[in-house]
Amino acid sequence: MPEQKPPDTQAAPGVQTIAEPDSTGLGHRTGPVVPGPEALSVLRPLGTDQVRLHPDGLLGRWGRRNAEDTLPHCVDNLREHGNLDNLAAAAGESDASFSGMWFADSDVYKTLEAAAWELGTSPGDPALRSFVEETAALLARAQQADGYLNSYFTVAAPDERWRKPDWSHELYCAGHLVQAAVAAARTGVSPELLAVARRLADLLVERFGPDGVEEVCGHPEIETALAELYRLTGHRPYLELARRFLDLRGHGRLGHGRFGPAYYQDHLPVRDAGEVTGHAVRQLYLLAGMVDVGVETGDHTLLDAAERLWDDAVGRRTYVTGAHGSRHRDEAYGDPYELPPDRAYAETCAAIASFQWNWRLLLATGRARYADEMERVLYNAVASAISSDGRHFFYSNPLQLRTGHTGSGEEAAARRLSWYSCACCPPNIARLLASLHGYLATSDDDGLQIHLYGSATVSATVAGRPVQVETRTDYPWHGRVELTVTAGETADETSEEAGPWTLALRVPSWCDVYGVRVDGKPVSAPARDGYIRLTRAWAPGTKVVLDFDMPVRQVSAHPRVDAVRGCVALVRGPLVYCLEQADLPSGTVLEDLRLAAHVPITASHREDLPDVPVVLAAGGTLVEQAGDPGDPLYTLAGAGERHGAPLTLTAVPYFLWGNRSEGPMRVWIPLASPDDQS
Amino acid sequence: MPEQKPPDTQAAPGVQTIAEPDSTGLGHRTGPVVPGPEALSVLRPLGTDQVRLHPDGLLGRWGRRNAEDTLPHCVDNLREHGNLDNLAAAAGESDASFSGMWFADSDVYKTLEAAAWELGTSPGDPALRSFVEETAALLARAQQADGYLNSYFTVAAPDERWRKPDWSHELYCAGHLVQAAVAAARTGVSPELLAVARRLADLLVERFGPDGVEEVCGHPEIETALAELYRLTGHRPYLELARRFLDLRGHGRLGHGRFGPAYYQDHLPVRDAGEVTGHAVRQLYLLAGMVDVGVETGDHTLLDAAERLWDDAVGRRTYVTGAHGSRHRDEAYGDPYELPPDRAYAETCAAIASFQWNWRLLLATGRARYADEMERVLYNAVASAISSDGRHFFYSNPLQLRTGHTGSGEEAAARRLSWYSCACCPPNIARLLASLHGYLATSDDDGLQIHLYGSATVSATVAGRPVQVETRTDYPWHGRVELTVTAGETADETSEEAGPWTLALRVPSWCDVYGVRVDGKPVSAPARDGYIRLTRAWAPGTKVVLDFDMPVRQVSAHPRVDAVRGCVALVRGPLVYCLEQADLPSGTVLEDLRLAAHVPITASHREDLPDVPVVLAAGGTLVEQAGDPGDPLYTLAGAGERHGAPLTLTAVPYFLWGNRSEGPMRVWIPLASPDDQS
Repeated sequence: MPEQKPPDTQAAPGVQTIAEPDSTGLGHRTGPVVPGPEALSVLRPLGTDQVRLHPDGLLGRWGRRNAEDTLPHCVDNLREHGNLDNLAAAAGESDASFSGMWFADSDVYKTLEAAAWELGTSPGDPALRSFVEETAALLARAQQADGYLNSYFTVAAPDERWRKPDWSHELYCAGHLVQAAVAAARTGVSPELLAVARRLADLLVERFGPDGVEEVCGHPEIETALAELYRLTGHRPYLELARRFLDLRGHGRLGHGRFGPAYYQDHLPVRDAGEVTGHAVRQLYLLAGMVDVGVETGDHTLLDAAERLWDDAVGRRTYVTGAHGSRHRDEAYGDPYELPPDRAYAETCAAIASFQWNWRLLLATGRARYADEMERVLYNAVASAISSDGRHFFYSNPLQLRTGHTGSGEEAAARRLSWYSCACCPPNIARLLASLHGYLATSDDDGLQIHLYGSATVSATVAGRPVQVETRTDYPWHGRVELTVTAGETADETSEEAGPWTLALRVPSWCDVYGVRVDGKPVSAPARDGYIRLTRAWAPGTKVVLDFDMPVRQVSAHPRVDAVRGCVALVRGPLVYCLEQADLPSGTVLEDLRLAAHVPITASHREDLPDVPVVLAAGGTLVEQAGDPGDPLYTLAGAGERHGAPLTLTAVPYFLWGNRSEGPMRVWIPLASPDDQS
Repeated sequence: MPEQKPPDTQAAPGVQTIAEPDSTGLGHRTGPVVPGPEALSVLRPLGTDQVRLHPDGLLGRWGRRNAEDTLPHCVDNLREHGNLDNLAAAAGESDASFSGMWFADSDVYKTLEAAAWELGTSPGDPALRSFVEETAALLARAQQADGYLNSYFTVAAPDERWRKPDWSHELYCAGHLVQAAVAAARTGVSPELLAVARRLADLLVERFGPDGVEEVCGHPEIETALAELYRLTGHRPYLELARRFLDLRGHGRLGHGRFGPAYYQDHLPVRDAGEVTGHAVRQLYLLAGMVDVGVETGDHTLLDAAERLWDDAVGRRTYVTGAHGSRHRDEAYGDPYELPPDRAYAETCAAIASFQWNWRLLLATGRARYADEMERVLYNAVASAISSDGRHFFYSNPLQLRTGHTGSGEEAAARRLSWYSCACCPPNIARLLASLHGYLATSDDDGLQIHLYGSATVSATVAGRPVQVETRTDYPWHGRVELTVTAGETADETSEEAGPWTLALRVPSWCDVYGVRVDGKPVSAPARDGYIRLTRAWAPGTKVVLDFDMPVRQVSAHPRVDAVRGCVALVRGPLVYCLEQADLPSGTVLEDLRLAAHVPITASHREDLPDVPVVLAAGGTLVEQAGDPGDPLYTLAGAGERHGAPLTLTAVPYFLWGNRSEGPMRVWIPLASPDDQS
C-alpha cells in the first residue's frame, strides 16, 4: 500500500476546514450537512448559531426536553449498560467483558453527536461537557496505534477484525464516530474527537481506498459520514472513499446472508436501483450518502437515483405518518403498497434517516416536496418515538395497536421503554432533536427560505448582508405564522443599503387555502413550486402574517393499499391523529368503533386533556355484537354490520399516543358503510 | 438414577402391544393415533387396511401422487442434501461434516414415517422398502450405546448434547423418530425401527423421567410421540414422561430466548393457557400431545384446555384456508384478528399439525367441528403447499401475492420450490398424504362415522360384526356422495344376523341445504350435531345418496379482521377460491380488480382449464387510473373509486394456484362499493 498522504494537502479550494473555520464565508457554527462551495446544491444551510428556537414553541420545547431529559438519560444508560466500559476495556483500563450489541459503540457516538449539537447551542451544561471531554479522551486511549477503533472487535473478537463486512458494522460504527466528530468540530466543542475520527478515517482510506480491498459495509452510514468529513476538512480522499463505497456496492460482495443481498442494498448498483429494498434504515442512510457524494462530486446520476427511489418510497411504501419499513422479520420495506398498520415496523431510526435524507435532497434541489416530507415524518413518525417525559422510547412505531396485544417484546412493545438492548433509536432521537434548529431554514443568493415553522429567530447572510426573521407561531396546533423581518445581527455594522431579497415561505402540501398579509395588508402571493416568494427591500420591522387554513382532513390511501381499505385517517395540518383506548368508555373494544361518514369533525382544546393542545371530536358508532364470544370468524357476506347509537369519538395527535395509559390505538378508522344498519 | 425398568412390565391391561398385535380386538394395521381401550375417546379410528381410497377420486389421486412422486422426491433430496450422510457420520461410517439444519434428522424420520404408511398400503415398492430397511439399519448403527441418537449433536457438537433444551430440538427429533417407528410397527414394515426408537425413548425416561432432570424441549413433538409409543407398546413410563413434559412446561424453564417464553408456550402452564401463542407449529404439536395425554390418562383438564384453545385459534386466529400463523418474524400467531393475507405465514407444517390436532379432538369428543376443520385445512392450506406435479412445495402459504413481490426468499417464495434449506414441510406433507385414508372414518359401539368424503371403500367392525361401505363421489368438486352398504369382508364367515347399526354422515358446516335418499327414496334425516345418523339393519346393497347443495358462497371476515375489510372470499363446498394473474388480460394489475356486488357467480368446468375441474366466473371491474405513476399514496377521502367497464373474473381453487405461471394471486377480493362510480 502507498504511504498515507499527509492530511489536508488535497483540500479542495474554498472548502471549510478546521484550520480555516471561516473559509466558506459562513463564519458560523454549521450544522448537519454543509455542502461545499462547489457542490451541486441549490440551497445553503444556516449555521446552528443562526437559528434559535424560542422556548415557548413546540420545537423549542422538544429541544429543551432533549437537553434536560433525553440527553442525560442517554448518558446514564450508556454508563449503566456498559457501552463506556466496553471502550475502557478496549483501552486496557477495564477487565469488563464486552456487553451489549457488537455495534454498541455507535450508541456512544450518536450520544456524543447529540451532546456536541447541544453544547453548540447551550454551552453551559458542565456535566454534558465533561461527558464529551472524558469520552473523547477515552476514545483516544481506546484507539489502536494504526487508528483502528471498535471496542467489540478489540475486546471480544480481535480475530474477526475486518473479517465480516456483511455483519460487523465496523464501518457503520466508524461512520457514527465521524459524524460525532464533525458535529463536535463544527460546533467547536471537541477538536480531540475530530483527531480520533481522522486517524480512523485515514486508516479506512488506507485499507479500503483506491489501492485497498474492494469491500463495503453491510450497514451503510460511512458514506454520508465520509462526505461530511470531507466537507469539514477538505481532505478529498474521504470523499473519494465514500464514492468508492457507493461504486462497489450492488455487486453481491456481501453475499447472500440470511435475507438476501437486497437486504443490504447489494443486489443492484446504487445508480441502477428502481425501488427501495431491504432494511429500511440501511437503505435510507445509503440514500443520504448518495446525495452527499452526488452533490460534492457533481455526479447527477447519484442524485437522479436518489430522487427516483424517493418516488418509489414515498409513492408506494411510506406510512401516512412518514414512517418507513413494513416488515418486522428483516426490518424491511415490503412489496409495493404493503403497508399494514398493526405490523408496521416503522423503526424510529428509519424515520430519522428519512428526515436526514430529505434534508439532503432539499438542499440539493430546493424542491418543496422534500421539506413536506421532513415535516410529515418529524411531527408523526419521529415525534411518536419519544414520550412526553423525554425518557421513554419506541423502537417500532406502529399505526395500530390491537386489543389483546401482548407487547413484551422490544420490537413490538405496547408502550415506550426506557432503553433497548439494541439502543440505536434513543440517541438517534437525541442527535436529531439537538440539531433541529439547523433544519428550519436555508439561504441562497436570492434570500432566505423558511421550510419548517416554529417560534424562532432566524438570521442569515443574504448577498453579503445580514438579515433576520423573528417567527412566532403555535404551529402545528394552529395555522397562523407571524414573521417579523428585523435587522440582521450585524446590520448596524454595515453601511450598505438594504437591497431587495426574497423571503420564501413554504406552503405545506396539506394546505389548500392560505392567506398572506404584509404589515396588515392582504397580498396576493400564489405559491410557486411550494413556496410563497416575497421579494422586496425589507424594511426592519416589516411583519408578514401567514394563515394556513387547517381543517380536519379525512385521508384515504391508494386503492392498492389493502390493509386500510374502508378506513380514513384524520389529519390536521401536519399532524396525523389517532384513536386511543384511554378515550373510550370502559369495556369498549377499539376495533369495534366506526367513523360516521357525514358528521362534521371539530378541532378544539379540551380542559380535561391539558397536555393535548388540539383534540378532535368526530361522530362514530359501535359495531354491535362484534365481540360476542363464539361469533364465527367467517360468515356469509350479507347485510353489512349492525351499528349502535351514535357516539362521539375523540382523536388525539398520533405522536402523543401512549402517554396516558397503555392500551390499543389506531390511526386508520373504519368508516361506517352506507350499507350498514344502525 | 434408578435402574431402567424392563420394557412392557408396566403395560396397561388391554393395550395393544407389539407382542400382542390383536389385543385391542382391532386386528388391523392401525393408523396415526390409536387411543387405548381405557382412553376417554368417543370414537375409534379404523385400521389403515380398512379404508382404501379409489384411484379416481381426488384424495386417491393425491395418495398416488404422493407415492409416485413426492416420496421418491423426498428420499432423493435426503440423499442429496446430506441428511443420510449426517447419520452415516454419526455411525462413524463417513467423514462428511454435518450439513443442513441441526434438526435435519427429523426430515429423515418424517420421510420414514411416510414410507411406513405408504408401504402399509402398497407393500410392493422395493425401492421404498430398501430405503426404510437401510435407513433403519443405519439409525441402529448411528445410535450410541446408551440409546442417544442425534447426528448433529454426535457429529458436530458433542459437547452440547442435552445442554440447550430451548434450542437443540433433540426431543423434537426424538419425537419424529418415535412417530416413524410407531408407523413402521403399526404397518408391520420395520420392527427394527421400533427397537431403535425404544432404546432412545428408554434413555429419555431415564434422563427426563420421575427421578431425572426437570426439562422440556423448546419444540414440542415428543409429547404426542411418547403417547403414541405407549399406545403401541403399552409401556406406561412413556405416557408418564409425556405427561411430565406437559406438567413441566409453562414455568419459564426455557428462558426468554429471542422471542420470549410464549414463543415456545413456556409462559403459562398448559392447562391455564387461554390463547394460542408463539410459534404456531410448536403450539399445535403441543396441543396434539395434550389431547393424547389427556385421553390416555383420563385428565379432562388437558382436554378442556385443548378445546378452549381451539375456540381461540379457530375463532380469532385462523385463516379462511384453515392456515395458522400470521407472522413471519417468529413463525407465530398474531394478536386476535391479526390475519394479513399477504404476510400470512401460514406454514405448511402448521396446517398439517392443525389437521392432526383436530383428528385427535375428533376422536376424543366426536364433535363435528373438528372434522369440519380437518376438511377445511386439508383442501386449502395443506393442499396448496404441494404442486400438481408433487415435487414442489410451499413453506409459507399466503392468501395474497402482490404485484411486484420479489419472492426469492424461502419464507416468502413466489412459487413452490423443489426443496428447502429447512425442509420440514415436504416430508411432513408426505407423511400426511401417505396416511390420509386413516382419517376418513371412525367407528364406535353404534356404528360407523364418515367424516371426510372421497371415493373409497371403508370397512369396519361394528359390535363385533363386519360392515363395509363403498363411497363414490366427485367431492369436493360436486356435492353428491353415493354410499353403498355392502357386506363386510368377513361377513360370509359369520352366521350372526345383521342387527341395526348407525351410519353417521357428516354434514359439512358450509352446507345449509342437502338431501338424503336411501335406495332412491328421499328420507328426512335432519343432522344432529353435524351428522346425519341413519340407523337400521342394513341390507347388503343398500344405497344412500347424499346431495350437498354446493353454491358459491361469498364469505366475509369478522369485523375486527382489519386486513380484509371490504373484501369477500369466494368459497364453494370446502374449497376456497382465488384470483390469479394467469387469468387476467395482459397488463392488468390484480390489485386493481374489484368484485361486482350483485352479479351472480357461476361454477362450471372450462375446456381451456382442463386441470381445474370447477372454475368460477364472477362479475368484476377495474379501478381506473389506480396505477398512474405519480398518483399520491394518500389523498383526501372523497367520492370513492372510479371503475371501468364490467369484466368477468375467473377464480380457481386456492390449492391449485401457482401451477400455471408465477404471478400475483389473491383470495380476498375487494368489493366494488355502492359509493363508487362506474
